[in-house]
Amino acid sequence: MSTDSIPVVAICGSLRRDSLNRRLLEAAIRLAPAELDIAVQRIDRIPPYNADLEKDTLPIAVRRLKQAVNDSDGLLLVTPEYNTSIPGVLKNALDWASRPAFRSPLVGKPVAMMAGTPGRRGAQRALDELRQVLESTLAEPLVKALNVPQIHEKLRGHEIVNDELAASVSRLMAELAEALRDRAERPADDRDRIAS
Amino acid sequence: MSTDSIPVVAICGSLRRDSLNRRLLEAAIRLAPAELDIAVQRIDRIPPYNADLEKDTLPIAVRRLKQAVNDSDGLLLVTPEYNTSIPGVLKNALDWASRPAFRSPLVGKPVAMMAGTPGRRGAQRALDELRQVLESTLAEPLVKALNVPQIHEKLRGHEIVNDELAASVSRLMAELAEALRDRAERPADDRDRIAS
Repeated sequence: MSTDSIPVVAICGSLRRDSLNRRLLEAAIRLAPAELDIAVQRIDRIPPYNADLEKDTLPIAVRRLKQAVNDSDGLLLVTPEYNTSIPGVLKNALDWASRPAFRSPLVGKPVAMMAGTPGRRGAQRALDELRQVLESTLAEPLVKALNVPQIHEKLRGHEIVNDELAASVSRLMAELAEALRDRAERPADDRDRIAS
Repeated sequence: MSTDSIPVVAICGSLRRDSLNRRLLEAAIRLAPAELDIAVQRIDRIPPYNADLEKDTLPIAVRRLKQAVNDSDGLLLVTPEYNTSIPGVLKNALDWASRPAFRSPLVGKPVAMMAGTPGRRGAQRALDELRQVLESTLAEPLVKALNVPQIHEKLRGHEIVNDELAASVSRLMAELAEALRDRAERPADDRDRIAS
């Protein structure tokens, strides 16, 4: 990790081993500008959110998640759509990460979002829900998000084999890098105004 | 349980011990018509949804949830609003219960929904999200849902001390009973048309 690298935490909303969205996430990491240092954060051991657990020592998987988000400058979220929304698993991780409200490690962090599905219509409703949830936490989702219909036809193994998708993913990752550079150049007192 | 009683499964979206929504749920059970036999289903042990786990024997907490929904004629869901949406915990339970898609135990089941919050605006966005998710599973949320702002001022211990709220809860439970009676009178081949 060079002194100029920008730490980013990446989360996949699907837990299954051969998830298409996980493969898309891995391809996105390879297509990202070299300055981004992207670490995938697993969410499969995060317990169900329970405010009672916030009174004492947080569960270790929650501490790791919050520390990873805290140590990052931005996020990359890649998710399937379940029942016209984001997976409960991903929402649960965001529920934990969003605490304490308006002073959480999510505040002010740029977020790149992608959502893939085998369907022809794509996963726009998952992206819309994810944006609404993130904005309510004062995170800063990028204006453009990537909706990937028919994802199964666009990946072979862990490679993107659809030129249009590869270009879109590269563009999104470049936009994330740009948002992170902009953020780094903002004065700290402005950047952390709400979080402080 | 009399021979005429109608089984209903109830779920609270908050896991904390002293949850206001859990107390609202318990009050609703007391205010429900006697013919409703409402059993509260806990969701705190339900693991994160992972499609790989559906290939073998389901985790026991998931089996119990699906069996409870399957054995019920309808549902009662009472939830807080987290980050302008429903808790990830509740969405995760619905992700499991909604499988297999369009043939799950949720199909055709009437659902009464309530959402309480200490805020003045209430939890309408949680109710809207819950309705959208349920409709996508082919469950049948009641037309009216109960949004409860300033819930902390309307409960004392486990009792509702606000007359308007008590009347609204009673009305919602009566509407659930009516929907369940209507459903019981529908011919089975119509009722289970989609599920079969």
